[in-house]
Amino acid sequence: MFSRSTESSPAPALKTSCWFNTEEDLTLEDCKGRVVALIAFQMLCPGCVARSIPLALRLAQLFEPRELAVVGLHTVFEHHHVMTPDALQVFLAEYRIRFPVGVDMPDPGGANIPLTMQAYGMRGTPTLVLIDAEGRRRAQYLGEHDELLLGAEIGALLAERDGTRRSGPDHETYDDAEDCTKNRCEVPA
Amino acid sequence: MFSRSTESSPAPALKTSCWFNTEEDLTLEDCKGRVVALIAFQMLCPGCVARSIPLALRLAQLFEPRELAVVGLHTVFEHHHVMTPDALQVFLAEYRIRFPVGVDMPDPGGANIPLTMQAYGMRGTPTLVLIDAEGRRRAQYLGEHDELLLGAEIGALLAERDGTRRSGPDHETYDDAEDCTKNRCEVPA
Amino acid sequence: MFSRSTESSPAPALKTSCWFNTEEDLTLEDCKGRVVALIAFQMLCPGCVARSIPLALRLAQLFEPRELAVVGLHTVFEHHHVMTPDALQVFLAEYRIRFPVGVDMPDPGGANIPLTMQAYGMRGTPTLVLIDAEGRRRAQYLGEHDELLLGAEIGALLAERDGTRRSGPDHETYDDAEDCTKNRCEVPA
Amino acid sequence: MFSRSTESSPAPALKTSCWFNTEEDLTLEDCKGRVVALIAFQMLCPGCVARSIPLALRLAQLFEPRELAVVGLHTVFEHHHVMTPDALQVFLAEYRIRFPVGVDMPDPGGANIPLTMQAYGMRGTPTLVLIDAEGRRRAQYLGEHDELLLGAEIGALLAERDGTRRSGPDHETYDDAEDCTKNRCEVPA
Repeated sequence: MFSRSTESSPAPALKTSCWFNTEEDLTLEDCKGRVVALIAFQMLCPGCVARSIPLALRLAQLFEPRELAVVGLHTVFEHHHVMTPDALQVFLAEYRIRFPVGVDMPDPGGANIPLTMQAYGMRGTPTLVLIDAEGRRRAQYLGEHDELLLGAEIGALLAERDGTRRSGPDHETYDDAEDCTKNRCEVPA
Repeated sequence: MFSRSTESSPAPALKTSCWFNTEEDLTLEDCKGRVVALIAFQMLCPGCVARSIPLALRLAQLFEPRELAVVGLHTVFEHHHVMTPDALQVFLAEYRIRFPVGVDMPDPGGANIPLTMQAYGMRGTPTLVLIDAEGRRRAQYLGEHDELLLGAEIGALLAERDGTRRSGPDHETYDDAEDCTKNRCEVPA
Repeated sequence: MFSRSTESSPAPALKTSCWFNTEEDLTLEDCKGRVVALIAFQMLCPGCVARSIPLALRLAQLFEPRELAVVGLHTVFEHHHVMTPDALQVFLAEYRIRFPVGVDMPDPGGANIPLTMQAYGMRGTPTLVLIDAEGRRRAQYLGEHDELLLGAEIGALLAERDGTRRSGPDHETYDDAEDCTKNRCEVPA
Repeated sequence: MFSRSTESSPAPALKTSCWFNTEEDLTLEDCKGRVVALIAFQMLCPGCVARSIPLALRLAQLFEPRELAVVGLHTVFEHHHVMTPDALQVFLAEYRIRFPVGVDMPDPGGANIPLTMQAYGMRGTPTLVLIDAEGRRRAQYLGEHDELLLGAEIGALLAERDGTRRSGPDHETYDDAEDCTKNRCEVPA
């Protein structure tokens, strides 16, 4: 059931060892003013590959980058010896992932769980975190999440960010939009 | 690409010959204060049955009825002799549709297209109309529509309606919610 | 788990009140020499519309009509007043069904279940019956059925019918066939 | 369109550097008397992971191992440095793959394409090869393949292998089988 989250604490900082698909390391500070969809995944986690990566790719395609920042985080907490940054780089190329992806910083004390994953209290992968335009963590999901509900949460955070309704196309322009398919019955012309 | 609609004109009134799943005839006036998802369909339109009816059923399940009113409208514009109210009643029972469904009023002048469909300028089925809490038509789609985008539009209209953020559960309560499935890798306990 | 059926009794004759998509009434005798996939459905049965009709359409498209006869049977056992032949005709047009569809003969004694459905002992819709090239009923399924298994049963019945392996294209011709999509990694040329 | 292949040449021998999920190295000789579905894949090939691996898992579940041998082959032709046997072992565990998987032998001359892939003339991944019970290569597909057609080809090869129809359960036992779901309308008891 849809329910908008209350205001909450600032999202913990991202602690990373390296980044892909971005010239400079990304921080949540850089994302202020935009809603952030943070996708924590492991490249050999079946649920991540089947559900979470395609979802992230669609979010990056459907929303304006200046409104919604889609950010990946490779949170390796098992099989570290094969889910290396080198392997991740191949994975990102093969799956045509163009949004920024950071590698979660390994625990210097040797714990399996990397530092950002610890800071967020993530309990597995995939985990999706929604951060509002003011940097507050507003929702965090482990596992698969309904797309209508996720869309509604993002839409609400974008509306909050805008404050007032923006100028934009009138409803008529949506009719027959590119997002509509041909699976329909039309009134004969 | 997601974009919120501008303010627009009031949604035209629903003109109907009868209603199912509601004790009294429904008007858009009755829905004021709620966002309305108006689903125009024909019971023998393949795209409606495959996509639009399941979508409407999920909207009715995922959103609070006091926030989002899901309303069906049987807009028969062809094969009137078999898509009768009697047949619709069986269809609603077989598909377990519990939200209110009105029958669009046939044109007294004998045109194929019924009156509400004419008033909205609908060009076929399925058509989805989003009406905001103040009764303005904000979006109208012919055919299938992306669920992430539709969710975002509904979420934005709900956020507008609320004005300010509501009190509600903190983000932590979303973690591991019923909407999450088991398709994931968990940190060993 | 796949298992081929033993030889069994002749399939009961089809008792019908009328036919669509065929110039003359169809009998199982007419189908001798071909494997028959008999699809019993009701036009307002959600499982039939969502699963069984699309399956029948794909069978008709994927297999040679002279090898596999796809035959529909409208077995109305409830809501007879709205699932009339007139309504069925519209349904067949809207779903673009071109294979022969018979209307199961109503029970002259007034029972809800029509005569062919009685003769086959069908317990609901959709029901799929496989009949071999010699007219024997080899399998009968109520509800949805795995496509790999169904394909294997049809393939086995076709192989039985052929007796010996037919001449045909060599394996190389399958490589990169029209049934293959682009979802793959290719060796650079 | 379904068509059974003609008799063809013996399938080339598998040349492998190591095997998983089998105590002894597997050869096609070992599989004589069974139909073989040989699945050539790369662990970081998106089409393989999304389509081919799930298909192989279903084949292994739906058919008797003594009738159909499902055999994986890791045919790495790019990114060799990260798709190592160590990484494959983790992949097999994460995807719960229990059928035998061989690692295609790297070319000792340094070519990117490994030896079995060369011998079969495979042009990319995923590639599916069907080998009959007498060891002849009967079909080879690059990319995704229709499940009804694939099932039909396997069913035909199994029927060939059996020669005559086997004893087995009568058609009635299929009615309401475990492979049927509840998506149906039942005659009231």
